[in-house]
Amino acid sequence: MSGIADVARLAGVSKSTASRALTGGGYVSDDTRRRVTDAAASLGYVPSTSAVSLATGRTRTVALIVPKVNRWYFGAIIEGVERSLISQGYDVTLYVAEPGSRDRESLYSTYLARKRFDGIIAVALEPGDTDLERLLAIDKPTVCIGNPLQGIPTLGLDNIGITRIITQHLIALGHTDIAFVGSTPPTDAPARDVDERSIGYRNAMNDSGLAVRIRSVPSTLTITDAYAAAASFLADAASRPTGVVAACDEVAIGVVIAARRMGIAVPTELSVVGIDGHDYAEMFALTTVEQYPEAQGVAATRLLLSMIEGEQPPPRTLAETRLVVRASTAPPRTV
Amino acid sequence: MSGIADVARLAGVSKSTASRALTGGGYVSDDTRRRVTDAAASLGYVPSTSAVSLATGRTRTVALIVPKVNRWYFGAIIEGVERSLISQGYDVTLYVAEPGSRDRESLYSTYLARKRFDGIIAVALEPGDTDLERLLAIDKPTVCIGNPLQGIPTLGLDNIGITRIITQHLIALGHTDIAFVGSTPPTDAPARDVDERSIGYRNAMNDSGLAVRIRSVPSTLTITDAYAAAASFLADAASRPTGVVAACDEVAIGVVIAARRMGIAVPTELSVVGIDGHDYAEMFALTTVEQYPEAQGVAATRLLLSMIEGEQPPPRTLAETRLVVRASTAPPRTV
Repeated sequence: MSGIADVARLAGVSKSTASRALTGGGYVSDDTRRRVTDAAASLGYVPSTSAVSLATGRTRTVALIVPKVNRWYFGAIIEGVERSLISQGYDVTLYVAEPGSRDRESLYSTYLARKRFDGIIAVALEPGDTDLERLLAIDKPTVCIGNPLQGIPTLGLDNIGITRIITQHLIALGHTDIAFVGSTPPTDAPARDVDERSIGYRNAMNDSGLAVRIRSVPSTLTITDAYAAAASFLADAASRPTGVVAACDEVAIGVVIAARRMGIAVPTELSVVGIDGHDYAEMFALTTVEQYPEAQGVAATRLLLSMIEGEQPPPRTLAETRLVVRASTAPPRTV
Repeated sequence: MSGIADVARLAGVSKSTASRALTGGGYVSDDTRRRVTDAAASLGYVPSTSAVSLATGRTRTVALIVPKVNRWYFGAIIEGVERSLISQGYDVTLYVAEPGSRDRESLYSTYLARKRFDGIIAVALEPGDTDLERLLAIDKPTVCIGNPLQGIPTLGLDNIGITRIITQHLIALGHTDIAFVGSTPPTDAPARDVDERSIGYRNAMNDSGLAVRIRSVPSTLTITDAYAAAASFLADAASRPTGVVAACDEVAIGVVIAARRMGIAVPTELSVVGIDGHDYAEMFALTTVEQYPEAQGVAATRLLLSMIEGEQPPPRTLAETRLVVRASTAPPRTV
C-alpha cells in the first residue's frame, strides 16, 4: 500500500506539501494540488479521514448557509464556494433556510450546534438579525457574503454607490421620470441590500433635483413577480416612467419582458437598468452593473480559510463590480 | 444539563422516538420531529455527534452529487433533498462536478473515497458512464435521479412517453411541420434524457406518417442557447416549422423570447411546447409537461433513507408528471 511519501515523490513535492494538498491543512496552489491529487489517484492513496481529524482536530468541512438555492445569485455563490473548497480539500455542508423560517430555527438549535465544520460561510444575513448573535455564539471562523455585520468579516457590494451610478446613468441620458422597482417585503432576502439600493436611487434623484419624482414599485426579486408588477405599473401611458432602476437583473428582465408584451419599446419608450450581470442580461441587451457572485464565493472561501489558519481578515471586503452599458438604455423619446 | 429523557418527556414521546428524531436513525413524522426538536431547543439539548456516530456507526450525512447548481432543475432537486434530509436529522454534503470534468475526477478519487457519508444521491448520471462502476465500488446505499441504471435504484421520467404526448398534442392541433429543439452535445447533462425525448418525438412523428418532416435543432438546455439557436432556425419564413417540441422548458422559453423579438406571433404563427413546469412557464403561457424536481428530491431522499435502514427499493420509480395546456399552442394558421 502506498503512503504519503510515495505520493509526494511522484508529485515532486515535499511530504508536508503533499499532506497539505490532500488534507486541506493550509493553502496550496491549484496546480500543485492537482499534481498531488493526480499522484494520489494513480497510486490509489486516500488519506484516512479519522486519522487526519484526530491529528489536526479539524473536520475539513465548511458549513454554507443560504436562504435559497434556486436564484441566480445564490446558485452562483454556491458554485463558487463549492468549487474553491473542493480544490482545497474541504467538503461543503449545505444548509438552506430562509430567515424567519422553521428550518432556520432548527438550523441554529440543532445543526449548527453540532459544530461538524471548521468554519461557516453565511450568505445574505441581515444586520440586526437574531441569527447574528447565534452565529457568533458558535465561535467558529465565519465569513458572510452580503451586508456589513458587527463582529463578522463580510464581503459584499457598495449597494448605495452602485445604484447611484445606474440612476445617474439614466439622468445623464435625459430621464427625469425614473422609478425604482423591487422594494421588497422584509422577508424576501436580501432585504437590506435592496434597502441600500433604494437609498442610492433616492440620493441620486435628490442630488439632481428630482426629489418629487421619486417612486418605488414593490416586487420580490424574481422575474415573475417583476413581470406581474410591471404589467400593472406600466399599464397607464400617462403615468408611466421613462426609466426604471431595477433592484437586480431579474427584476429588470421581468420589466423588459412585460414591456415587450405590452408593445412598449425598450429603450425607445422605456429605459431599464439592472444590477447583477445575470446569465440572461446579454440576451435582453440589459445595461447593468455586473457583480460576480461565483467569484465572491471563491473570495469568501479564501477569507474563511485564512481565518481557519489563524489570520484575521479585514471587517469589510468590497466585491468587484463593473458598469456594462447595452441597448436597454437610451435618451427618452420626448427629449 | 438536560438529557434525552427530559426531551422525550417534554415532547410527550418515548426516549427511543426522541432519539430517532434527533439522530436521524429511522423514520419519524415531520410533526413528531418538530415537537422533539422544539423540546430539545427549549432545553438547550444537543446530541453529541461523536457519541451518536460511535453508537450507530453512522455519519448522519448524505452526499449529493449534481453536475451544476445554477439550472432550475438541479436547483430544485437540491432544495428538495436538502429540505427533506434536514427534517430527518441529516446533513447534506454537496458535490458539484460536471461529468468528464477534472472536478469529477477528484470527486471519485478523493472525496467519495473518504466515505464521509451514509449514502449517496446522484443526479443525472449517464448510463454506461465510468462513474457508475466507481459509484458502485463505494459500496454505500445510493439512489440516482435520472435515467435507469444497472445496479442502482433510480427515480425519473418516462421521457419517451412524455415527449410522445406533447408531440401528439401538436399533431392533434393540425401541425405537420414540427421541429425538435434541444438535441444537445453529449457533454451537456442530462444528455440521455434528451436522447430519449428526441426518440419520443420521432416515434410520434413516424406514427402519424410525418417521418419526412422529422428535424432536430441542436441547443444546450439553456434559455440563452435556445434563444440563439431560434434566432437562426426561425429566420427563414419559408422553412420555418409551425410547431416546436422543446427538450425542456428553458429551451421552449428561449424559442418564445426569440420568436417575439422577431415578430413571430406565438401561438398564431408558431406553437411551442416544453417539458418541466419551470418557474417561468406560466409567465410565457407555456404548454408543458410539468415534472416536480423538488418533489423528486424528497422522494429520492425517502428511497435512500429506506436503503440506509436496510430495505431494497424498486430498481425504477417513475416520477409524477402532468400535461398543462396553456396559450403557447394552437392550431397552425394555415390549416
